[in-house]
Amino acid sequence: MSRVVIGWDIGGANIKAASICDSGCQVLDRPFPLWGRPERLATALAQMCAELGSADAMALTMTAELADCFETKREGVRFVLAAAVEAFPDIRIHVFGVDAQFHPPDLAAEQPECIAAANWMATATMVATEHPDALLVDVGSTTTDIIPIAGGRVVARGLNDTARLGTGELVYTGALRTPVCAVVRAVPLTGHRVRVAAEVFAITADVYRWLGGIDDAGYTPDTPDGKGRDRLSAGRRLARMIGADLEGVHDTDVDAIARHVARVQVRTVASAIRQVRQARRPAAARAIVVGTGRFLGRRAAGVAGLEVIEPSGALGPAVAVATLLRARLRAGDAAARP
Amino acid sequence: MSRVVIGWDIGGANIKAASICDSGCQVLDRPFPLWGRPERLATALAQMCAELGSADAMALTMTAELADCFETKREGVRFVLAAAVEAFPDIRIHVFGVDAQFHPPDLAAEQPECIAAANWMATATMVATEHPDALLVDVGSTTTDIIPIAGGRVVARGLNDTARLGTGELVYTGALRTPVCAVVRAVPLTGHRVRVAAEVFAITADVYRWLGGIDDAGYTPDTPDGKGRDRLSAGRRLARMIGADLEGVHDTDVDAIARHVARVQVRTVASAIRQVRQARRPAAARAIVVGTGRFLGRRAAGVAGLEVIEPSGALGPAVAVATLLRARLRAGDAAARP
Repeated sequence: MSRVVIGWDIGGANIKAASICDSGCQVLDRPFPLWGRPERLATALAQMCAELGSADAMALTMTAELADCFETKREGVRFVLAAAVEAFPDIRIHVFGVDAQFHPPDLAAEQPECIAAANWMATATMVATEHPDALLVDVGSTTTDIIPIAGGRVVARGLNDTARLGTGELVYTGALRTPVCAVVRAVPLTGHRVRVAAEVFAITADVYRWLGGIDDAGYTPDTPDGKGRDRLSAGRRLARMIGADLEGVHDTDVDAIARHVARVQVRTVASAIRQVRQARRPAAARAIVVGTGRFLGRRAAGVAGLEVIEPSGALGPAVAVATLLRARLRAGDAAARP
Repeated sequence: MSRVVIGWDIGGANIKAASICDSGCQVLDRPFPLWGRPERLATALAQMCAELGSADAMALTMTAELADCFETKREGVRFVLAAAVEAFPDIRIHVFGVDAQFHPPDLAAEQPECIAAANWMATATMVATEHPDALLVDVGSTTTDIIPIAGGRVVARGLNDTARLGTGELVYTGALRTPVCAVVRAVPLTGHRVRVAAEVFAITADVYRWLGGIDDAGYTPDTPDGKGRDRLSAGRRLARMIGADLEGVHDTDVDAIARHVARVQVRTVASAIRQVRQARRPAAARAIVVGTGRFLGRRAAGVAGLEVIEPSGALGPAVAVATLLRARLRAGDAAARP
């Protein structure tokens, strides 16, 4: 029996959905800044589902509960679950938790600590089936997960965001949405050190747009100033970080600024990789590098001295929860067969 | 002859105006996020003027040209000057420059590098008349100016924002609007080091609101989540910086986070004070500490080993340009008298 499962990864800024059946996989990634319009979440989910076609079951993971429209994660988890149930009243929803198990929405709502920000566990659990001893390095648009896998099991030390920000398993730095002022305090300019503005004038998407790591289409977030995603506009935003405009600095100066920010970001991720590796003996020797910012993860893993493996194909939490649920439903079918 | 002069300090987030005449001084400070509605600037200026009553002359300084609605500082300077002329067609406007001189708007528009971000020069020029050898430490809501004064003259090494961010004379850190993620990379939590989220979940106003340095009324910026300015809401925003909510951390944890951010901010300002002092011999022995964030400037100057003097009364760029213009017009009258 072939089931169609749609996997959901509901974040605070983006919603990703992956429809999986025997014949393949279809993925959608839509910007949805939850904090601006939480009441439209159910509609957004239903619309994305309509684009993907019908489904027999839904698998769901989320990080949206951290959005600052919610006072507590409990409130956020319940809100997102209610929106999913509203969007799909007739389809069974399976909510993935940091215990690597699926839960029905009503029980999930009772244990927000298990459900909140479990998306990394989904990806890691799936990667563990292929790579039983490795470090998963998943660099997203906003955050980076560094997850140890040993003996085919996910052996993360932190299970919630706060603990994970402490162990290095979560680093709040990403290839697109991270404000430049959260990466560096100062940048080089013609041999001097110049402090940067503590404003969200530029984000890492501007850095990699300028350096050529991404193109206009790869620059998916809103631009900080609402202006273009082209290279010149990105350069203008980077110049503004030191109180300058493109009349005041040369292209080579912007190059130096962008390269410095990229270098510091690689160093930041590499340092967290070292922290995660050191916590466990024997330390992993290879990194499985995935995510929008894999170009960054690859460099960081290299700096930290790991062999780098980059799986082909889509491999995000949405695909992971859908794949995991499909496999478990199939196993259940097999077990139920006389 | 007694003239009424209104001084203006037009920033990217706030407009300050000071009306000065023989009988005293009246000051207004209004939030005006320029990037959201630049076309309403002239109206905003006219409304603030109406509140202050009539004026014989206007003195003006600005930092608004750095707002990211402008592609270049030239464009920003011209836009602000045009708005001022539109708001006050019948009153003579005198625009202060980093050369410590006033310029008519048409000539000012031709030399944007002289006019852009000259507000620090206004305050420093006024302070220099009272304190001929000192370091002015002006901690605002968003930025901090550290200006050397020697022999009664302002002897700053940097004259534009970029140069000043290099010399330490401008530090982009302030007591209210600075994102916490631009101050610290990590905070302590029950003996461990926890990385912070690279999001504007909390600002320094939340730090000082929690610690008691400011009250609800002193919390003038918009809150990052659009919620309350009360202490509990501030604490909730600080907890969110480490992916937690107030169900997940104790009050003492939030205390530790807030104190750490405050400590790093003091250290940041103190380090810039040292850099500015070391550039000049003999180094200044006393700091004249002013600004919304003077509680922060006081601590930083103390850490840097300076004697702290805190002038009483209002002393911002708006008051400074008005006072300086009044004195110069008076001197001109005297010179013109037969």
